[in-house]
Amino acid sequence: MSTKPLKIAVTPGEPAGIGPDLILQLAQQAWDAQLVVFADQAVLAQRAEQLGLSITLTPYENTETRLQTPGELFIRQIDTDAPVQPGTLDSANGKYVVETLRQACQANMEEGFDAVVTGPVHKGIINEAGVSFSGHTEFFAYQSNTIDVVMLLATEGLNVALATTHIPLEYVAKAITEERLHRVIRIIDADLKQKFGIASPHIYVCGLNPHAGENGHIGKEELLTIIPALETLREEGINLTGPLPADTIFQPKYLENADVVLAMYHDQGLPVLKFKGFGAAVNITLGLPFIRTSVDHGTATDLAGTGQADAGSFRKALEKAIELANSHL
Amino acid sequence: MSTKPLKIAVTPGEPAGIGPDLILQLAQQAWDAQLVVFADQAVLAQRAEQLGLSITLTPYENTETRLQTPGELFIRQIDTDAPVQPGTLDSANGKYVVETLRQACQANMEEGFDAVVTGPVHKGIINEAGVSFSGHTEFFAYQSNTIDVVMLLATEGLNVALATTHIPLEYVAKAITEERLHRVIRIIDADLKQKFGIASPHIYVCGLNPHAGENGHIGKEELLTIIPALETLREEGINLTGPLPADTIFQPKYLENADVVLAMYHDQGLPVLKFKGFGAAVNITLGLPFIRTSVDHGTATDLAGTGQADAGSFRKALEKAIELANSHL
Repeated sequence: MSTKPLKIAVTPGEPAGIGPDLILQLAQQAWDAQLVVFADQAVLAQRAEQLGLSITLTPYENTETRLQTPGELFIRQIDTDAPVQPGTLDSANGKYVVETLRQACQANMEEGFDAVVTGPVHKGIINEAGVSFSGHTEFFAYQSNTIDVVMLLATEGLNVALATTHIPLEYVAKAITEERLHRVIRIIDADLKQKFGIASPHIYVCGLNPHAGENGHIGKEELLTIIPALETLREEGINLTGPLPADTIFQPKYLENADVVLAMYHDQGLPVLKFKGFGAAVNITLGLPFIRTSVDHGTATDLAGTGQADAGSFRKALEKAIELANSHL
Repeated sequence: MSTKPLKIAVTPGEPAGIGPDLILQLAQQAWDAQLVVFADQAVLAQRAEQLGLSITLTPYENTETRLQTPGELFIRQIDTDAPVQPGTLDSANGKYVVETLRQACQANMEEGFDAVVTGPVHKGIINEAGVSFSGHTEFFAYQSNTIDVVMLLATEGLNVALATTHIPLEYVAKAITEERLHRVIRIIDADLKQKFGIASPHIYVCGLNPHAGENGHIGKEELLTIIPALETLREEGINLTGPLPADTIFQPKYLENADVVLAMYHDQGLPVLKFKGFGAAVNITLGLPFIRTSVDHGTATDLAGTGQADAGSFRKALEKAIELANSHL
């Protein structure tokens, strides 16, 4: 753990969305870190004026490291390509959005930053700009030469990781292979040790089928794939329980011992997590060579500039990044 | 609504499991109905003695209708075929278990009973007895000449119905057809009106894919099947919202308006329901010509006769049956 203030890279994401609003709201309080926003200063200044928020925007110099104070943000300047109208997507700024991510990634790889926290982007408008972009996670993985990453969502008292993410349901059963489970679970185990500072993470694993297949009566994947995969990983010393039925694994008697629940697919794990978290969930990417947390909502362009946007998830993402940066071995 | 006391048929299920224990526990209090247990009186008497519970077992006569009082149960006698040892399954009593269900079904069809509440059975031991049995729901459907039924789980403040139930995950996408959604949703709408007494039920429908397919980007079933099916049903006057992503549909802003959430499959809907219900969920079969509620747990043979079994779900199932029988049009 460093005695220097933590440096957190923040990307507001889509400039016509609520990302700029949220970081300006959150900058009204003190944070136990230096928050460096990778964005166009003019966008933030204009949005602050529109929202009636007071803000001092200080160009970030690599040499200077000091805590963020209320009403202040440090800026790594990146110019937009077209004027920004809150609420109106413009593909002319698609490249700008991707450039903020590229520089934030580089700052974490090469300049001693401790984490990156990302606001919401709009994939469609970036692709309209002629930039192939399938999401933050894939972009950061590519930029950092990472082969595999794992999506984890966190809320108070519950972490849920996903073995598969945004694929059609009909492909899920085929995507669950022993090899995939090996890779996913090794990443979870390694990152919970290294980034979360948990000495011996206890991972609870869902089955794929209803009732975890009921001993082969409702699908064979537990017997043929999941149980053998977990057996191999247990022999490596990874602390695993499961496969358990998804409709019993989220009971208190299991959750009190689980550092993370691994769901086989998106809608098996996230409905409970978001129900429990009342919308204030944090998205954490495991497997990257740096800490990355994110809001779990979209750009909500209709709320940009209105002062109505809820900063709950962005706040949790910042808090989680700082917590992990402090736990990081 | 009748002014006579409600008559509720209760089947304790597997005699070596916790079903008899639970109904004996629940009989220690008064109920606003006449509880008639379809079982072997000797099993209940023996179990009560083992548990140290006082019970008066009165043979049920069709002509007599009076409320159950604390420490009393009415019995429709059905003889076991072999002595019952709590905790030890015996296929010799497989036919007995099915006979209790058959008579309870008949009592609801022909003898003016108002509902049936079922305890847990063990499918394996019934099938070992040479009786083909795939579950209560299927059995009651067959006995009552019902073509289609829908499984609904209820807990305080949340009802979740399932478009598919105990099938392997890999078959789910194929099982979701327009025709199936028409039948399932019409049953839900009809039964919420008739049995729940809700004048215009508001049904919230999940998508099949993550993010409800994100406009075709993560699976086409929403566009090709679900949305057209809902459109047809709306034209019939059914009050539907959706398809919505499963990880946002369970937020308070939706749930406060939803009489029921229809999940496309088991692990999309039940983890949230059981998390919210802390294990005290009630299983309700829609589409039958009578009211049927059930515990949502198994036989727990290791707890039979120990006094350690938790009657929470059986209590809720009884309470729900009485509530529905009072709402029934």
